[in-house]
Amino acid sequence: MDYFSNHISRLIGELSRLPGIGPKSAARLAFHIIDMPEEEVEELAASMVDAKKNIHYCKTCFTITDEEECPICRSRSRDHSTIMVVETTRDLAAYEKTGKYEGVYHVLGGAISPMLGIGPSDIRLKELVERLRGDVKEVIVATNSSLEGETTAMYISKLIKSSGIKVSRIASGVPVGGDLECIDEVTLLRALDGRVEI
Amino acid sequence: MDYFSNHISRLIGELSRLPGIGPKSAARLAFHIIDMPEEEVEELAASMVDAKKNIHYCKTCFTITDEEECPICRSRSRDHSTIMVVETTRDLAAYEKTGKYEGVYHVLGGAISPMLGIGPSDIRLKELVERLRGDVKEVIVATNSSLEGETTAMYISKLIKSSGIKVSRIASGVPVGGDLECIDEVTLLRALDGRVEI
Repeated sequence: MDYFSNHISRLIGELSRLPGIGPKSAARLAFHIIDMPEEEVEELAASMVDAKKNIHYCKTCFTITDEEECPICRSRSRDHSTIMVVETTRDLAAYEKTGKYEGVYHVLGGAISPMLGIGPSDIRLKELVERLRGDVKEVIVATNSSLEGETTAMYISKLIKSSGIKVSRIASGVPVGGDLECIDEVTLLRALDGRVEI
Repeated sequence: MDYFSNHISRLIGELSRLPGIGPKSAARLAFHIIDMPEEEVEELAASMVDAKKNIHYCKTCFTITDEEECPICRSRSRDHSTIMVVETTRDLAAYEKTGKYEGVYHVLGGAISPMLGIGPSDIRLKELVERLRGDVKEVIVATNSSLEGETTAMYISKLIKSSGIKVSRIASGVPVGGDLECIDEVTLLRALDGRVEI
């Protein structure tokens, strides 16, 4: 990479550490950045530092927000007796985009992963259990359909069931519009197991 | 995007303006950035601003470099009588990686594009002509094989030929390892026109 200047090489190096950005994309981005007006580069750089420094979590559901409590938790029109448990704020956003879910959320901040050394005490499970002391009727576990997500779902189910609160898990199966021949075997078998009468 | 904080939304907005980064990648990158240690975020941001502020072009070939003259132009082992004309520093880097080209370069900083309003005076053609006053035997035009690149190549050819200096164009054809059925018709016809006896 010594065909470029040290500054460019350093920038390419920094960019290629980001997820999904290989050395070629990093070079393309770096050359785009040096072609941008200086104010725009400063704006981009400042937005990164600002976002990192001003990160704040909702005191109730632990999603990322600018206020003490997020708009969803403050909303009177939401059903506060139904809590959807998700791994990250991005998963919350994915469900919010559907516009159909009326309950509230609980953001765990990850999933149990013995491989990565993430245990139940490393994610916000204690905080979830504390919230259940209120008037909660159902906990919908919407962790990812990965090994870690399933492990976390099972752990939550065991943790809560004895309290008499309903615990459900979002369905797993063939995605809408999915082409059967392109879908992995595990998903196909899940879809078969979870079949419903029509 | 109001499921996230304003800081995150702003960062996602900034990132999605970069080439090849859509809204989903921008969100993934933004959440990765806020999960990075603060020093690393500052390092990344500083590398962008530094690269932009310290951009410097070689006084001879106009490639991006940290010094007044780039290592290639300063090198005594390179053949300074052969100049390869490229559009960008990235194209120069692509040929340098082959390790086989022994001449020097001239970076135009773009290509002639009537569509984008880029004329001959907007790229470094005047500087190229000035370099030809020295002891130059051949100019190899290695602009892209696009409409703009070809237009620029033809322009350079007309500009220089009268001076008696040899002007050549890199070959265009089927890429090595390329599968014929996957290659566009224009390239196939170029490859046919440019056939060589074996």
